[in-house]
Amino acid sequence: MTDSTLLVLGGEPAPRLDRLSGRARVVHARDEESLAALLPSADALLVWDFTTDVLRGAWPGEGRRPRWVHTASAGVDRLLFPELTDSDAVVTNARGIFEQPIAEYVAGLVIALAKDFPGSWELQRRRQWRHRETMRLAGSRAVVAGSGPIGRAIGRTLAALGVVVELVGRTARENDAEFHRVYGNAALKDLLPSADWVIAAAPLTEDTHGMFDAQAFSLMRPTARFINVGRGQLVVARDLTEALVKGSLAGAALDVFEEEPLPPDSPLWDAPGLLVSPHMSGDTVGWRDALAEQFMDNFDRWVAGEPLVNVVDKRLGYVPVP
Amino acid sequence: MTDSTLLVLGGEPAPRLDRLSGRARVVHARDEESLAALLPSADALLVWDFTTDVLRGAWPGEGRRPRWVHTASAGVDRLLFPELTDSDAVVTNARGIFEQPIAEYVAGLVIALAKDFPGSWELQRRRQWRHRETMRLAGSRAVVAGSGPIGRAIGRTLAALGVVVELVGRTARENDAEFHRVYGNAALKDLLPSADWVIAAAPLTEDTHGMFDAQAFSLMRPTARFINVGRGQLVVARDLTEALVKGSLAGAALDVFEEEPLPPDSPLWDAPGLLVSPHMSGDTVGWRDALAEQFMDNFDRWVAGEPLVNVVDKRLGYVPVP
Repeated sequence: MTDSTLLVLGGEPAPRLDRLSGRARVVHARDEESLAALLPSADALLVWDFTTDVLRGAWPGEGRRPRWVHTASAGVDRLLFPELTDSDAVVTNARGIFEQPIAEYVAGLVIALAKDFPGSWELQRRRQWRHRETMRLAGSRAVVAGSGPIGRAIGRTLAALGVVVELVGRTARENDAEFHRVYGNAALKDLLPSADWVIAAAPLTEDTHGMFDAQAFSLMRPTARFINVGRGQLVVARDLTEALVKGSLAGAALDVFEEEPLPPDSPLWDAPGLLVSPHMSGDTVGWRDALAEQFMDNFDRWVAGEPLVNVVDKRLGYVPVP
Repeated sequence: MTDSTLLVLGGEPAPRLDRLSGRARVVHARDEESLAALLPSADALLVWDFTTDVLRGAWPGEGRRPRWVHTASAGVDRLLFPELTDSDAVVTNARGIFEQPIAEYVAGLVIALAKDFPGSWELQRRRQWRHRETMRLAGSRAVVAGSGPIGRAIGRTLAALGVVVELVGRTARENDAEFHRVYGNAALKDLLPSADWVIAAAPLTEDTHGMFDAQAFSLMRPTARFINVGRGQLVVARDLTEALVKGSLAGAALDVFEEEPLPPDSPLWDAPGLLVSPHMSGDTVGWRDALAEQFMDNFDRWVAGEPLVNVVDKRLGYVPVP
């Protein structure tokens, strides 16, 4: 297989793929045009710039095309256009890299909101000493939308801090090995009224698109806080802003947005009680190297004819948890 | 004992002591003068305003005085002037109320610093999208100065987040039931060079006064962060500021200060990389009622002639952990 061609799509800095040297011809595409030109001769495609949308337009209608597509991200929502879904190409993702960092990030946001760190640091800017009472985490209640590895890592971490956690996912299950049960998405409306924390960490699918809308926000407590570390499209941003303005929700933190980078004129930048961060919850130092290593491990399996890990169920839109 | 007199020293709002009604005569002192006048006729003293320093000046030289002094705080450093220490008065404190909230607060500060929340929210103010790589908590190393209930709660909570924790206290012990060992204060200098997080949560005593000084900061990594939730006097603030200015320390968060409220002209308000909060790490909603309940529970024991809980070793300056 030394003759196999690996096509890398975009992303700066480029991945360090030293281990592949002499074992694959590595070519790089930076835009839709070069991608379209190179795809028919590629055996495998590494979507390194997972924010790009150009693959759909460049995908060959018929004839030769990659048999394996790997994306350096947990979410595959940008990849699963019908022509790829219907093709026999195997899609794999970066499951395993982001779970723990994202869980830490969410735990930090929860505590920051419970203890009003933003308020303290704003008072610091004004050199004002103003003691406030804060919220105790232990015994508070969180609903986590997303029962995959990221949702589970978040749930586990919050539970370690004494938070009572309910997981919501596509498939309800009694007797979950880790959480006593997992609720189906339909149960969300029954769980929201008693939640102090609502965390969106679901894959973006037809089922989850816009799942946090005006109706969902209207079911939350006025003291509740909402956090999104999944995909921007899980949330109807306009409805969230309205809920914050009306005070029917106490606060929110968004790390992901429908349009990224968030445009400078977006009203989200200064919506009341909303914390914005630039899609970085999972990106700890060394994350790019970890992503490249993970891909190369799968490349070794591919070359050896072994089953790939992290194979996405293209119909479901994520790697199913066993 | 319905004739016993309980003297309450300061603090707004006053404690809710309904359960004592008809069982004790409750009188209030607001300043040194009224305190001095009332102390000789008081059987017990509740130091409700634990920030006050007036007790020392008002304490009766000889003759009648309270046999029991309870402070609504974990630290007793302001209480232990020689005349009280040498007297036969029993001193009790608020051990049990603040541990978990403070541990949550510290965990939040650690994550906020690891993930650069202050940077993200500053960028948000400027409507700037700037992705950064952040630090992973799991596998990082913390040294917690303070092996009492608060230090332990902090250690336990950080350990639950995957942080490797070393506790430092007055008494070194191998085979600690919860942490594999506890180091003596003398070991601090050996532990600091490998710590990512240094947390001050020790009681303020002669041994711990100024324990975080220029020498200690010089032993820390330039990437390390320092957090103080104990007492301001554990730290030589000038030395901390210098370390931050020099960049020999990456950041710090202080919730306690030598002078509280922190004066508006203090250089600490805008020291580089320093987060200031107004002595509130342990004060979750309902804390005042919890403090009053705890005192009244001890009052019941006192009236019944039972041993009080949370008895401070006045020589050590804290409630010894068994």
